Amino acid sequence: MHFAVITKVLGILLMVFSFTMAPPVVIAYWYRDGSELAFLSAFAVIFLLGLSLWLPMWRKRAELQTRDGFLVVTLFWTVLGVIGCIPFLFNPALDISITDAIFESISGLTTTGATVLTGLDELPRSLLFYRQQLQWLGGMGIIVLAIAILPMLGVGGMQLYKAETPGPMKETKLTPRIAETAKALWIIYVTFTITCALLYRWAGMDWFDAVAHSFSTVSTGGFSTHDSSLIYFDSALINGIAVFFIFLGALSFALHFAAFRSRSLRAYVVDPEFRFFVGLIVSYIVIVASGLWAYDHYQGNTSATLHHAIFQVVSFSSGTGFISTDSSDWPTYVLYFLVLTSFLGGCAGSTGGGMKIVRAALVFHHSLRELRRLIYPTGVFAVRFGHRAADDRVLQAVWGFVGVYIMLSVMFTLVFIMTGMDPGTALSTSAASLNNLGQGIDGVASGFGNVTDFAKWMMCFAMLLGRLEVFTMLVLFTPLFWRQ
Amino acid sequence: MHFAVITKVLGILLMVFSFTMAPPVVIAYWYRDGSELAFLSAFAVIFLLGLSLWLPMWRKRAELQTRDGFLVVTLFWTVLGVIGCIPFLFNPALDISITDAIFESISGLTTTGATVLTGLDELPRSLLFYRQQLQWLGGMGIIVLAIAILPMLGVGGMQLYKAETPGPMKETKLTPRIAETAKALWIIYVTFTITCALLYRWAGMDWFDAVAHSFSTVSTGGFSTHDSSLIYFDSALINGIAVFFIFLGALSFALHFAAFRSRSLRAYVVDPEFRFFVGLIVSYIVIVASGLWAYDHYQGNTSATLHHAIFQVVSFSSGTGFISTDSSDWPTYVLYFLVLTSFLGGCAGSTGGGMKIVRAALVFHHSLRELRRLIYPTGVFAVRFGHRAADDRVLQAVWGFVGVYIMLSVMFTLVFIMTGMDPGTALSTSAASLNNLGQGIDGVASGFGNVTDFAKWMMCFAMLLGRLEVFTMLVLFTPLFWRQ
Ligand SMILES: [K+]
Ligand SMILES: [K+]
Repeated sequence: MHFAVITKVLGILLMVFSFTMAPPVVIAYWYRDGSELAFLSAFAVIFLLGLSLWLPMWRKRAELQTRDGFLVVTLFWTVLGVIGCIPFLFNPALDISITDAIFESISGLTTTGATVLTGLDELPRSLLFYRQQLQWLGGMGIIVLAIAILPMLGVGGMQLYKAETPGPMKETKLTPRIAETAKALWIIYVTFTITCALLYRWAGMDWFDAVAHSFSTVSTGGFSTHDSSLIYFDSALINGIAVFFIFLGALSFALHFAAFRSRSLRAYVVDPEFRFFVGLIVSYIVIVASGLWAYDHYQGNTSATLHHAIFQVVSFSSGTGFISTDSSDWPTYVLYFLVLTSFLGGCAGSTGGGMKIVRAALVFHHSLRELRRLIYPTGVFAVRFGHRAADDRVLQAVWGFVGVYIMLSVMFTLVFIMTGMDPGTALSTSAASLNNLGQGIDGVASGFGNVTDFAKWMMCFAMLLGRLEVFTMLVLFTPLFWRQ
Repeated sequence: MHFAVITKVLGILLMVFSFTMAPPVVIAYWYRDGSELAFLSAFAVIFLLGLSLWLPMWRKRAELQTRDGFLVVTLFWTVLGVIGCIPFLFNPALDISITDAIFESISGLTTTGATVLTGLDELPRSLLFYRQQLQWLGGMGIIVLAIAILPMLGVGGMQLYKAETPGPMKETKLTPRIAETAKALWIIYVTFTITCALLYRWAGMDWFDAVAHSFSTVSTGGFSTHDSSLIYFDSALINGIAVFFIFLGALSFALHFAAFRSRSLRAYVVDPEFRFFVGLIVSYIVIVASGLWAYDHYQGNTSATLHHAIFQVVSFSSGTGFISTDSSDWPTYVLYFLVLTSFLGGCAGSTGGGMKIVRAALVFHHSLRELRRLIYPTGVFAVRFGHRAADDRVLQAVWGFVGVYIMLSVMFTLVFIMTGMDPGTALSTSAASLNNLGQGIDGVASGFGNVTDFAKWMMCFAMLLGRLEVFTMLVLFTPLFWRQ
């Protein structure tokens, strides 16, 4: 392990992060909301912290290896998640415990979007902007993590993507080409964000809300500047725009890159994960809409039924967590179904949460193969994904991932029951955190302000685990990892 | 498919089954409980039904093939489950709907032990005996199914056992040696039953209760002749005997056979599934007992805490469903933990329910291997189980099984929520039926009499699916199976 270099890199990260206080400072001045000094002090503290990590180590050089990668990635997200709480603590308009501040910060950065705050509409705009910006930056980070870094680390079968990502990714060294890959992906991400913001503005949001919500839309983050989320705008047009950009955010950015490079939509149509995802979304919508119809929830109003079914399905299954309606009076099983869709989540290499569609698809095809094998015991069946047969090693990694993920969901649910939640609420809390969904139902439908501090810390842990594809972080808990 | 021969075999099965009315008839005469005629008519109806299936086909001959096996096994359990309802319908002391009668019969035969009846203590003894006998016969059937038949069908990785079972099991034909294997296993099963009954009698039960409960103990069935299950006897000694024989019932009968043949307990000690199971049980007990301690549930009474922790852990994790205490005031998470243990269930080749320990162990070791592979990407790690490395094909079958099983649990839970249960109760109902646990918590803690008819039918389906290791039945729902 190259601890010196890792410390140095962390120092640089913090110094770079400190400059993200600039937009909130500008906004604080613009709206004169009284947060200027808070953000400036946050900048100073975080910059100096970074400097104090970097300075003693700045001469150290070493090529980071694959194994350092697990530690670096986990530290990046954990340290940034914790340090990101400073602006919440410093803000004079907010009286918040350290637990709550760290929760909000980690929830932002992991694009979870679970919140302990209420009265958002009254908060300083600069602080609201900071929250949205956390999600946007987290989304950026996750795309690079999922497409450029995790495949090299071999987490959860993501070697699958090695061959498909732009640039040669077969080296075991961490640095080369990451920058180049990142640049290409970020151009797409920024383009989506700007387009989304312009459309939101056109559809009726003010500039501030348009930009703020574009941040949490393409990152499938789900933070809003209003307590009532998108219900506040009460606009089918805005909801439609949200659905479209959430959907884009939940697709693989490697796929967007391929489509962008070939200047054609064919890349999407032929992609097996895209097709599986669309198929799933359509069946989700059918199930939710027919549930609403069966209970005559919108008194036969087809357009309202479809509108909210589509919105909630896309929002929950991608792990975004925006809401278009107060669904607390929806049929219970529909609500739980929505929560369960977040376990499969979005596509790999997207900003979406959950186990990822590609894994769900492989597991599904694998299970079908086992059924076929029972009928033709001597037949040879490959697990196909698109036109290729999935590699056995990849399948094994995927199964290992899925197994551990389900085990963790169950464990977190039990832990949340232990903190006093009823079983349904506990499951919803697990899904909200581990799948980076952010939105709860039942006892946590209106936020997580009232759960115990212990539950909040467990949620922080779950959010980080989920965002780092579980294994990246879990591997650090094995003695084997630390052996030389 | 050899439909003629399958019909003939079914006919024979029913005629044989009709003779199991004999013990209840004898008991009805002995206690003069008024059910003699009901059981005699049930005998006549079932025998004639069997005869009418057998007679037109009795000259047909054909060697049944592997593929017929799926259909035969599923039909055996389904038809017997349905036909077994007749004595409930005919009994004058019982006013019961067809749904409830079929539910009770399938629940008995699949050794689930979920009941829709109340007032057991007042029912005719012959009918109570019939219920217990159903479980005992179901347990017998399941042992042969799991050890002699499923390995040949290749269901869920049970090829693993091919090499270990007595007699050569490598043929693809269904008939040879099954009879011989069955005989050896049944001798052990009967020996356990007799010993258990004698010990129950010695510990204070009357003869009727001793025999009746020995039937539902070694079969991990969980039916009782009293509404209050084992609480009725309020005896630590009886509970201890129950724990011991439940534990034996939840071990592989192939393992019992090996120990019996070698006249040594060494076979147990070296068996990897046995070791994993014991390890699990011990950790379950630690978790449950510390949960009870933490909430000071028994006011510091260590022996009561341990007594009930051990009993409930063994009863739930094996899928038996006896209760030693009214646990409705136990900490919620402990109760849900108990329910969750039933998903792993007992050992393969036992009468226990759930996914089976061998599969849990393989999945666990596989996941550990994936963690190791992340740290040493070029290392070669086999998934070890005991001294052997698990075959890749077996692992794939196991993963396919586990994936489908979890998917089904989630689906059944959603369906039960749809019928109006709260999410916790719905999960408990899923576990009670799919894992053949039989005992519920929360809304179904005192039985399933009050759930909707639709829920009862879904439970019947889940009980059969679970008992037939899911794939045996699921394969019949694929078009591929029916293609020539
Ligand atoms: K989210
Ligand atoms: K049972």
